Amino acid sequence: MDIVGEAHALVREADIKPYLTENRGLYHGSSPLVLKPASTAEVSAIMKLASETGTAIVPVSGGTGLVGGQVPREGGQDVLLSLERMNKIREVDPVADVIVADGGAILADVQKAAEAHGRLFPLSLGSEGSCRIGGNLATNAGGTAVLAYGNMRQLCLGLEVVLPTGEIWDGLRRLKKDNSGYDLRDLFIGAEGTLGVITGAVLKMYPRPRGRQVAYAGLSSPKAALALFELASQRCGSALTGFELMPRIGIEFTTKHIPGVRDPLASVHAWYALIDISTSDTAEAADLMMQALLTEAFQSGLVSDAAIASSLAQQDAFWHLRESMSDAQKPEGGSIKHDVSVPISRIPAFLAEADAAVHALIPDARICAFGHLGDGNIHYNISQPVGADKAAFIARWREVNAVVHAVVHRHSGSISAEHGVGQLKRDELAASRPAIETELMRRIKQAFDPAGIMNPGKVVE
Amino acid sequence: MDIVGEAHALVREADIKPYLTENRGLYHGSSPLVLKPASTAEVSAIMKLASETGTAIVPVSGGTGLVGGQVPREGGQDVLLSLERMNKIREVDPVADVIVADGGAILADVQKAAEAHGRLFPLSLGSEGSCRIGGNLATNAGGTAVLAYGNMRQLCLGLEVVLPTGEIWDGLRRLKKDNSGYDLRDLFIGAEGTLGVITGAVLKMYPRPRGRQVAYAGLSSPKAALALFELASQRCGSALTGFELMPRIGIEFTTKHIPGVRDPLASVHAWYALIDISTSDTAEAADLMMQALLTEAFQSGLVSDAAIASSLAQQDAFWHLRESMSDAQKPEGGSIKHDVSVPISRIPAFLAEADAAVHALIPDARICAFGHLGDGNIHYNISQPVGADKAAFIARWREVNAVVHAVVHRHSGSISAEHGVGQLKRDELAASRPAIETELMRRIKQAFDPAGIMNPGKVVE
Repeated sequence: MDIVGEAHALVREADIKPYLTENRGLYHGSSPLVLKPASTAEVSAIMKLASETGTAIVPVSGGTGLVGGQVPREGGQDVLLSLERMNKIREVDPVADVIVADGGAILADVQKAAEAHGRLFPLSLGSEGSCRIGGNLATNAGGTAVLAYGNMRQLCLGLEVVLPTGEIWDGLRRLKKDNSGYDLRDLFIGAEGTLGVITGAVLKMYPRPRGRQVAYAGLSSPKAALALFELASQRCGSALTGFELMPRIGIEFTTKHIPGVRDPLASVHAWYALIDISTSDTAEAADLMMQALLTEAFQSGLVSDAAIASSLAQQDAFWHLRESMSDAQKPEGGSIKHDVSVPISRIPAFLAEADAAVHALIPDARICAFGHLGDGNIHYNISQPVGADKAAFIARWREVNAVVHAVVHRHSGSISAEHGVGQLKRDELAASRPAIETELMRRIKQAFDPAGIMNPGKVVE
Repeated sequence: MDIVGEAHALVREADIKPYLTENRGLYHGSSPLVLKPASTAEVSAIMKLASETGTAIVPVSGGTGLVGGQVPREGGQDVLLSLERMNKIREVDPVADVIVADGGAILADVQKAAEAHGRLFPLSLGSEGSCRIGGNLATNAGGTAVLAYGNMRQLCLGLEVVLPTGEIWDGLRRLKKDNSGYDLRDLFIGAEGTLGVITGAVLKMYPRPRGRQVAYAGLSSPKAALALFELASQRCGSALTGFELMPRIGIEFTTKHIPGVRDPLASVHAWYALIDISTSDTAEAADLMMQALLTEAFQSGLVSDAAIASSLAQQDAFWHLRESMSDAQKPEGGSIKHDVSVPISRIPAFLAEADAAVHALIPDARICAFGHLGDGNIHYNISQPVGADKAAFIARWREVNAVVHAVVHRHSGSISAEHGVGQLKRDELAASRPAIETELMRRIKQAFDPAGIMNPGKVVE
């Protein structure tokens, strides 16, 4: 408490409470203390003291994680370390095209800093107004621009990390090429705060696309969507910046429950693809490329109807429909969710087999599987049958997970595509991945944090 | 020997000798045995036996490395493990856009397999006809297409690795998104065979660019080159696939010594930039984009003369000039080399300060600094003064390295940009990087290879 000052050490239950639950309310931990350091030096002093006293520390970033990674264990002794006061953009270097930011910088502030210099920071998430860079890095965040720009791992050149001992690793490099030993950076990225606290980062900026066009295509099947994706990849190359798959029921949920959302097509289709093209060329060039793609797709019979956005506002509206799909499920009752990925070529088979497995369990379950087809990442969400009891449906979460994840494994997929491991998937992953892989992860954890004080109970045990 | 069969275990000095030196002859090791396994199972059996008997193993891939990573230690007991018989393309999946290859597959064969399916595997190196994928991964190889596609790390989705104990880690995933624990893949990539043997990999394919154009621009200074790079990034976005910097002396060396190479410009300039534009659009579109870029550069006074390739053959010739620059130095006598990177914005200052430091040591040294400006990666090569004694010049290698690397460190750069650490830079890196970084690397090495049998003496000690 002496380290951060009394005002920045929360000890009253009412002050601590907001830090103890996550958005969905799946996890509840307890903690006697929340520390809010203002600098890397303060984080270092806290970790040094923690390692000397054997105190467990849970790093807290924006608190928007979905797997319980930011929630302390039950039992009450884990101390929370919130980076919310370390929220500065340290520097923008437009020539090297990098931003140096505190670990607690809010994602939207990083995006704005890039925009102010005529550049793009491409990470884009539903929670971008409140999630923080340290958490984005700790979970290797994904989002809607991964197809063109990659996950957070691809957007970061260097890190500053406070180790469990309090030592500071200054790896804030701005180098595009550096083969000078083991890749520590990518080990801390995605480690969910179990190997150290990310207090700063060097982030890459990109040129802002000059031309953009967005379209919806109506499709008969996931197989047709896959063929369309393949065609779009060939015709548009790196200009293809988004390719999202949605089912008819998702269009129905969003048009019914989200104000202002309209069906983009007059005709009804089993599946829909949102196609986003962004180029360094003009808006006209992007529009021509989209028209050429869709014309070819019509001629080959892949697509029977499509709508190209007629304005920037309509481009945004097209994306808004897609991004509202998760929220639109809430008024429909309980929803059992999965965040899975499979090799792109397996998506049609995965969907057919998962649907069959779920309907064998719950015949009238309403499957609303949508997501980043171009990344092989499907948010396989299942709404309860109409009129069913919500609690009884949700009680079958693990049972439904088991059959869906079995299909994922059959197709060599991942049951943790972009949201991370946290508490939610730690044991299931340990049971499903090769034993030697979990063993190597445990050895890494042991090598970095022998006392086990960094975010204990998460990722690996 | 029972594991691989007698024909594939070399014990005669004459058979082993070709494996003991690297291209430049800087390192000479000795070894009693070269094993050439035909399968992952055989590699596993060899490593199991090696771990039981405490035998050091040096994995050998294409043998084209420049830092002594593939050369056994002097003393004669390290056993060489060559993957040359494991050279198959296991599978090409054009829908998932991946190739699964053995660790011993030759890079050019992987490129051809992609081409046969109308795709591109973008890694491109001078040694692509003989280097192998396992070595490309172990060294996180770079090359001329990094600006657009990234290093080897960005081109790989999954690995199969035999661990020092002989256990096999099957991480041959084809997933674009997988956040299911610590990033083992990126730890093995770039570890130069010190944590395990890479026996297989899942590699990404890309759409082949449909349009391409290449140009040379004459420039007054590295600062002008940097401004031109910034303009090209803004105007061309991801279509800018190459931006190489060359000095006048490099043009002189290549036109003098490399048959068929001609000066691309009629006028003489202090510096030259090679600009490569590749698009998913037509060749005409690429040509128009190049013309627009150079017109804008002329108007703003950045460029005073430029030549756009008039044919595909001339595009190749433009690249050939750049790629011959290292060879063209050989007839000029001794050459002291550096493979460094700095933040792109620091390149002009780095070059000015490094030149001053070198000339303070050796006033007539002829500096031929060229390379991947777009990646911040300069091959800072120094040819001996005209008429100087070659051996006396080369004897000053470490002394010259020291002053150049001091400038690199002043600009927060790396003295090991793309060639790796091996034996050459192990101790210099350990002395120059933060102590905690070397300590973390040692702990990782200890966690993966406690007996120290995997490629001992390389990367970290």
